[in-house]
Order: sequence, then structure tokens, then C-alpha cells
Amino acid sequence: MRKLSMAELGRKSVQEFKQAEKIPIVVVLENIRSAYNVGSVFRTADAFLLQSIYICGYTAHPPHKGIAKTALGAEGTMSWKYFKRIHDAIEELRSEGHKIFAVEQAINSRTLQEMRFNNNERLAVIFGNEVTGVEQTTIELADGCVEIPQLGMKHSLNIATAAGVVLWELVRKRIPSHQ
Amino acid sequence: MRKLSMAELGRKSVQEFKQAEKIPIVVVLENIRSAYNVGSVFRTADAFLLQSIYICGYTAHPPHKGIAKTALGAEGTMSWKYFKRIHDAIEELRSEGHKIFAVEQAINSRTLQEMRFNNNERLAVIFGNEVTGVEQTTIELADGCVEIPQLGMKHSLNIATAAGVVLWELVRKRIPSHQ
Repeated sequence: MRKLSMAELGRKSVQEFKQAEKIPIVVVLENIRSAYNVGSVFRTADAFLLQSIYICGYTAHPPHKGIAKTALGAEGTMSWKYFKRIHDAIEELRSEGHKIFAVEQAINSRTLQEMRFNNNERLAVIFGNEVTGVEQTTIELADGCVEIPQLGMKHSLNIATAAGVVLWELVRKRIPSHQ
Repeated sequence: MRKLSMAELGRKSVQEFKQAEKIPIVVVLENIRSAYNVGSVFRTADAFLLQSIYICGYTAHPPHKGIAKTALGAEGTMSWKYFKRIHDAIEELRSEGHKIFAVEQAINSRTLQEMRFNNNERLAVIFGNEVTGVEQTTIELADGCVEIPQLGMKHSLNIATAAGVVLWELVRKRIPSHQ
């Protein structure tokens, strides 16, 4: 079980990454306070070859020292767009045929493991502020809420961790078996 | 789709958490550089009601200001143990019947979505240093390696995010459907 060297990992170049067919999932970030969390989401979205990150409200966007520190270069490969008003982001996503879900513990939210999607379905997933979560007005524009089951005492996850968990659940069935 | 209030979340008290039946998965941390990452893993392990965290080598352990900052109280609920030598941790886990996997991109590692376990199986999952990963000598003591598919350019995830992804995959089928 020898570890693979960097050369053996088969990394994509920036050019190859830009040209590769993406998984049609857009990550929407609403009023995220920590630029480090934003950078971590860039790194995760790169790893899962997602379509884009829509950065909304007062969330930091590249170029930004804090994002660069945790994105480790993914801010240069991932496609992203900034929207002052998240409503504009949601309108654009809906017009392009994305189903839109907010990650939030709400009445009628479905648990992550219950969600069923077609493999080619266009999705957008909204992650909200570290303390206050997704805004109620934003939730009302979404097609539904999805929640990560919280079995312990804290009932919350770090937003970068939550993004990893939710995005993995959405991409796990879309990954070709030879990967 | 009204958001739930704190009172509606049904959080466990510290006492209830300690008495609740845990999912028999142990998270093993080897030479993690960032105490913030350790704290995030505490928070995730609490959310998923895991058995314990085994902290090894020079990884920071509670009480620690950096851990407290990101664990947000989970360092007071989660069971944990410190081992100077990870070999001692692995020996103890094996004697208790845990199957032991390192999260690493190695020859013959299996991808996360291919892993199949019984629901009651005792597992331990080793996460290694942010830069160098799990030590080769540690990998040789494990029952196997599991890797998160990396489709993009970077070929790595933040360790707290990686822990969220892997632990979610292991617990998703063990969660009672009423959760």
C-alpha cells in the first residue's frame, strides 16, 4: 500500500481543468463571514469538478488573501461570479434550469440521505452565514431545504465541512466508476 | 419552509449525549498541524455521534484554545484519548475489533463510494498531516486505504473537510430513517 507520489496523482493542468466537462452543480454562498471558509469551499468545488461558485452579499470573493490561504490555487481554476443580491443569483440559476436547495434545518426540510436526484440534473445549493444560516427570505425563493442529520449535542457543522458533506452526497453517484 | 428555532432543534444535553449509544467509529488523527482542524473534527464527530477521537503524535489535544475555537463545545462532549505513538492507538483499536483504514491516495486504495461495510461494524479511520498525509509506516499497519475521488486540479481537500466527507459516507447508512 505505497502512497502515491505527486507525479502519480494525475492532476489536471489549469487548461485541462477549464476544458473538462463539469458536474452541473453550483455552490451559492450567502453572507459567509470567514474568507478561510470561502477558500475551503473553492478547494472542495475544484476537487469535485463542480460548475461554479456564486458568491453573494458580503461574502469575500477573489482576489483575497484569506481565500488564497485555504483555496491553495483553486481560486484560479474554479469558475465563480459575484452577486450583491442573492435574489439575482437565484433568478439566473432558475432561468438556466437549476433546482435550488438551501442547506438549513427548517420545517419540511429533507435529510441529506433521503434526497434523490437524476445524475444529470442541474442543482444549486445555498450555504448561509456561520451563525445565522440561510436568510428566511432566501429560503422562500428556494425549491426546498436539505439538512445534514445532526445526532449530537451541537447541531451545527462548520460551513466548509457542511459543504464537503453535502457536495459529496450530490456527486458520489455521478462519479464514473473508473475514478 | 420556516427555519427552526434553537429550541426546536432537539439538542442533546451533555448528560444525554454521554449516555446515548454511539456509532462505533473512531477517528484517528496523526500529526495534525492545525488545532483549528482538530476542533472542526471534534464538532463533526459530535454531530455524527461517533465513539471517540484518538489523538496521536504532535496533534494538539484539549484543553487547547485553538481546538476550543472551532469545536464550539464539542471538545467537552466527545470522548477522546491521547497516544504519543499511533502504533499504540492502532493496537488498542485492533484488540477491540475495529477495522482500520487510512485516508490516503495509495496503490490499491479503494475509492470512498466503493467501500461496503456492515452497519454495526467497528471502524477506525486515520487522517494524516495536512501536507505529508498519513505516514507510510502507519499505512502499513492499517487494513487498507480509502481515498476521496479528486476530479479537479488540486488533488487534496482540507483535512476537516475530508473528515466530514469520509465520516458522512460511513454514517449515512447507519442513521435511523426518522432522524
